[in-house]
Amino acid sequence: MINITLPDGSVRQYEKGTTAMQIAQSISEGLARNVLGAEVNGEVWDASRAIEEDASVKLLTWNDDKGKSTFWHSSAHLLAEALEALYPGIKFGIGPAIETGFYYDVDFGDREFSSDDFKQIEDKMLELAKQKEIFERKSVSKADALAYFTAKGDEYKLDLIKDLEDGKITFYTQGNFTDLCRGPHIPHTGVIKAIKLTNVAGAYWRGDETRKQLTRIYGVSFPKASELTEYLKFIEEAKKRDHRKLGKELELFAFSEKVGAGLPLWLPKGATLRQKLQDFLQRAQIKAGYEPVVTPHIGHKQLYVTSGHYEKYGADAFQPIHTPIEGEEFYLKPMNCPHHCEIYKTKPRSYKELPVRFAEFGTVYRYEQSGELHGLTRVRGFTQDDAHLFCRPDQVKEEFKKVIDLVLYVFGALGFNDYTAQVSLRDPENKTKYIGTDDNWDLAEAAIIEAASEKGLRTVIEHGEAAFYGPKLDFMVKDALGRKWQLGTIQVDYNLPERFELEYTGSDNQKHRPVMIHRAPFGSLERFVAVLIEHCGGQFPLWLAPEQFIILPVSEKYEETAKSLLDTLNNSDICGLIDFRDEKVGRKIRDAELKKIPYMLIVGEKEAENGTVSVRKHGSIDLGSMSPQTFKELLIKEVTV
Amino acid sequence: MINITLPDGSVRQYEKGTTAMQIAQSISEGLARNVLGAEVNGEVWDASRAIEEDASVKLLTWNDDKGKSTFWHSSAHLLAEALEALYPGIKFGIGPAIETGFYYDVDFGDREFSSDDFKQIEDKMLELAKQKEIFERKSVSKADALAYFTAKGDEYKLDLIKDLEDGKITFYTQGNFTDLCRGPHIPHTGVIKAIKLTNVAGAYWRGDETRKQLTRIYGVSFPKASELTEYLKFIEEAKKRDHRKLGKELELFAFSEKVGAGLPLWLPKGATLRQKLQDFLQRAQIKAGYEPVVTPHIGHKQLYVTSGHYEKYGADAFQPIHTPIEGEEFYLKPMNCPHHCEIYKTKPRSYKELPVRFAEFGTVYRYEQSGELHGLTRVRGFTQDDAHLFCRPDQVKEEFKKVIDLVLYVFGALGFNDYTAQVSLRDPENKTKYIGTDDNWDLAEAAIIEAASEKGLRTVIEHGEAAFYGPKLDFMVKDALGRKWQLGTIQVDYNLPERFELEYTGSDNQKHRPVMIHRAPFGSLERFVAVLIEHCGGQFPLWLAPEQFIILPVSEKYEETAKSLLDTLNNSDICGLIDFRDEKVGRKIRDAELKKIPYMLIVGEKEAENGTVSVRKHGSIDLGSMSPQTFKELLIKEVTV
Repeated sequence: MINITLPDGSVRQYEKGTTAMQIAQSISEGLARNVLGAEVNGEVWDASRAIEEDASVKLLTWNDDKGKSTFWHSSAHLLAEALEALYPGIKFGIGPAIETGFYYDVDFGDREFSSDDFKQIEDKMLELAKQKEIFERKSVSKADALAYFTAKGDEYKLDLIKDLEDGKITFYTQGNFTDLCRGPHIPHTGVIKAIKLTNVAGAYWRGDETRKQLTRIYGVSFPKASELTEYLKFIEEAKKRDHRKLGKELELFAFSEKVGAGLPLWLPKGATLRQKLQDFLQRAQIKAGYEPVVTPHIGHKQLYVTSGHYEKYGADAFQPIHTPIEGEEFYLKPMNCPHHCEIYKTKPRSYKELPVRFAEFGTVYRYEQSGELHGLTRVRGFTQDDAHLFCRPDQVKEEFKKVIDLVLYVFGALGFNDYTAQVSLRDPENKTKYIGTDDNWDLAEAAIIEAASEKGLRTVIEHGEAAFYGPKLDFMVKDALGRKWQLGTIQVDYNLPERFELEYTGSDNQKHRPVMIHRAPFGSLERFVAVLIEHCGGQFPLWLAPEQFIILPVSEKYEETAKSLLDTLNNSDICGLIDFRDEKVGRKIRDAELKKIPYMLIVGEKEAENGTVSVRKHGSIDLGSMSPQTFKELLIKEVTV
Repeated sequence: MINITLPDGSVRQYEKGTTAMQIAQSISEGLARNVLGAEVNGEVWDASRAIEEDASVKLLTWNDDKGKSTFWHSSAHLLAEALEALYPGIKFGIGPAIETGFYYDVDFGDREFSSDDFKQIEDKMLELAKQKEIFERKSVSKADALAYFTAKGDEYKLDLIKDLEDGKITFYTQGNFTDLCRGPHIPHTGVIKAIKLTNVAGAYWRGDETRKQLTRIYGVSFPKASELTEYLKFIEEAKKRDHRKLGKELELFAFSEKVGAGLPLWLPKGATLRQKLQDFLQRAQIKAGYEPVVTPHIGHKQLYVTSGHYEKYGADAFQPIHTPIEGEEFYLKPMNCPHHCEIYKTKPRSYKELPVRFAEFGTVYRYEQSGELHGLTRVRGFTQDDAHLFCRPDQVKEEFKKVIDLVLYVFGALGFNDYTAQVSLRDPENKTKYIGTDDNWDLAEAAIIEAASEKGLRTVIEHGEAAFYGPKLDFMVKDALGRKWQLGTIQVDYNLPERFELEYTGSDNQKHRPVMIHRAPFGSLERFVAVLIEHCGGQFPLWLAPEQFIILPVSEKYEETAKSLLDTLNNSDICGLIDFRDEKVGRKIRDAELKKIPYMLIVGEKEAENGTVSVRKHGSIDLGSMSPQTFKELLIKEVTV
């Protein structure tokens, strides 16, 4: 008999050689039907694989990320099986699960292939799935493996086998299809109930441009048809909310080839939105005792030699800027901390004045390969809502709590109500790879955990995920579509104070080293705005909307009324505009709806006579007629964060 | 007889060969005593030089810049004469007038020289001046010139003569001293009544580091002793107001070797001041119909090839930044206009929506040699309060008037009340070197002149001073010490719209090219803050002061009173702090005076009992006791710009 420990801590005895599927069956038939695989001592296995020793076992279902990933990996095999049945003689590259489904790379030879073929393949896959073909695992020798794919004439698989170690090679077979594969897989194809092929693209073999381009077919699959329907709705909604699409439609930002890829140009409405976010955070920061600083966007090589960035990132970063005469070497700044350390050093500091908190909306530049750039979420230049707190070791907890307050204030004001915190600590098995004293780490880790707990955060603790220079807390936020984004980070740093030899005079009149805390509630303005656009579908909270209302005179006759109305309404918190175009009011309303302007005020004969306005809210909501004063009060109330 | 036209337009007849001095004598003996030289047909001449033809003549005195410069040039010769008398055998480089006096470069051979020798030299100069030595001009052949300085053994003068054209060489002699010199000079040394040698420094011969380093002796001189006294007072005051000194004392900004020379770090108080200036201008700009934009600090090579900057500045600028994989070439942006042109191009524009006005506080980077950097006035990175207006040719005048309004609003709010405008137009003799059509130039030049006149500006018109791409208007501002600064510029540009192929659809439904106007009321925040610090001696207008008041509790007992007082007073327009230090109140007052904090509020027993505060204004002005509310009202009144 062997002891099996389940995730709830309970231990059960089973016969040696029992499988995860048998364990599931011993618990309930319903569970067994849903089991896709199992985590055995932390490694994902086929549910049908025999367990020979005591082990901790977690059964994986569709609700586990690793279960989902196994499901999709098996779906990739099913795709290959269907393709081989439909197009005999084609050759296969690799077919992994990815974050949102799976793909398989295929060499179709001379055959033409397009998304028009998707339907036929999906049907074939479903037909094969219905046959509940079992995924069979088999160990093979390297010689046998080579022989099999030589006979099949698949040079890609041969290329892969070449690099594998003899004795560690496995094949998986379902139905008539056999693949070189490490596994694991789901029990049988029958659990795959719904399939959608989503895209076709070119992909070089092994990502190498000098080698053959294969056809990459993307797909997604589900254990229930209803989940596919939901997924397709989600995709549709996500497309509508894509920040690149809305950014263009709402004229928030643009890119220009001449300026360069990954370098956003903020158009007037986007710049206004950005400024409002900055002002909002700046006000909160001033209240919280932060001091603004401004530093240049470049730094001398010496700064980055001191900070350690020079050695670490030199070759993979934007290359240096030289001066023509002195031959000095400058770098675009990849972060603001080294500059802030230099500001800390501009005068002697005493324990009494700590913490000092330097805040800067600092634009930094980091090299990304052009192919990896994506809208505002992956850029080459972005503005961090950065601040660096220099404090005594005994102040870390209090500072962490204050930063958590600030982050939660920001999330609340912007409608992000579903978040968790991830606390990243040292690997307790390998303390030597971290900088800083043991005492300080213990103090800081305890401080972060206590701060998170006292603030009532839902927290996940990850050991070994800390940076080498200190522990950290990251906020994971769920948006309106349920997608998770990492926004907001707080990090302790023992490294830079050491490298920059930062000091303060303690109450003992001795020199001490301060602790540094990096933090950014937004993370970066670019990424935050991207997430915000997708979260609210471009329908920003009123206080943040770049245009909060629009006055629609029904004809030229009412332009003066519109102008005096605008004067009445505009103030430092509210800002609107007038649609002066020579268009019918119906068209003006439609356009204002498209531009997602929160309020529309219609001014015509009746309104001019009565001194009222007809108010419509975005989304075709008629609020009826009211006095300008009433409308203004309504707006001011809504705008107060 | 010849006709002499005087500056007032009157024409007088004189004998051929008459001199400017004789003309002066014919007007008044007093005038003649003050004449230092004359502008004859636009060229500066010795007052003693014979005029052989009809000419327009302007007599130059100490009140003319060119008169002053002649006076100082002659003083340099007097310095050389004194030096040669005191140190026989020394050799001379060059000895020009400069903006604030004159210098002479001297090779003292093995002789030691320091400012300790100044007194003896000044005395010698005054002794020679009393002899009223006449400056005699003599044309010499190149051979004679070479022979003279070969005999004297002065290799520097020989080096200079080498490059001169035979037939155009002149010597000037006063007393025992003869110099190679183009002139002109004052009539005699007797008008030099007061002399101060100010500095001694090293200077390479012909500015070339590989050649010999000479000793540069700086001096200044005056026609009246009282002017020297005034000048020395001015220097003393200017030193006290030096923005580099005050910037450090008031903790506004700092430089760090590691970050790099010429790259200011804005400390909290400086960053606050800067932000207030930005917010102030931003508010005014939004009211005036500007739209904010934000663009990156780098641009692809292609952007600068298009703009023409690549070809023009490539080798003398910060060198390119390469990407490691794609090998792309980026540049630090030296100006914001190319980026704004790309924003203009993000959508089609109609004549109806022009002008569009894109505003950005854009930080730009321009290479300066490290030796030429100076505080905040000459830096390598600075933030322009930039905007680009794209308008139709018929809108140029109206836009110019609006920009003038904005500039004057800014000057008024910051206490710059003494300014003139310089309008720079085409050289009418050489129209081909300018880009843009004749019609558009005529239109724009007329528009600028009319706009300046309608706005009642004191205007100087300079022909031939326009940029090749368009005419411009610059504001020259006098500060509290009477020094002139160029602040604020408005420039028309026909070049960039052409190079970027900017267009709008006209009412004729055809494509037209817009006119672009660059403008910056501050010029740059760095330079403006430097001038402002020196103008107000660090005593900023209340609304701009980074710390507007400070509460001084007389002991720890009154800290709570101080805190609740701060809560009562602080609001979005007013911001103060508390001096919590364990110091006597007298010391606290002295420190607050040094920090130039506008108001001090003393809180002790009496104040805590009566619910009042004792208010002192910076400069030891006791305003007595008042209620916090009264003080707040006083502040709000003063702070309202």
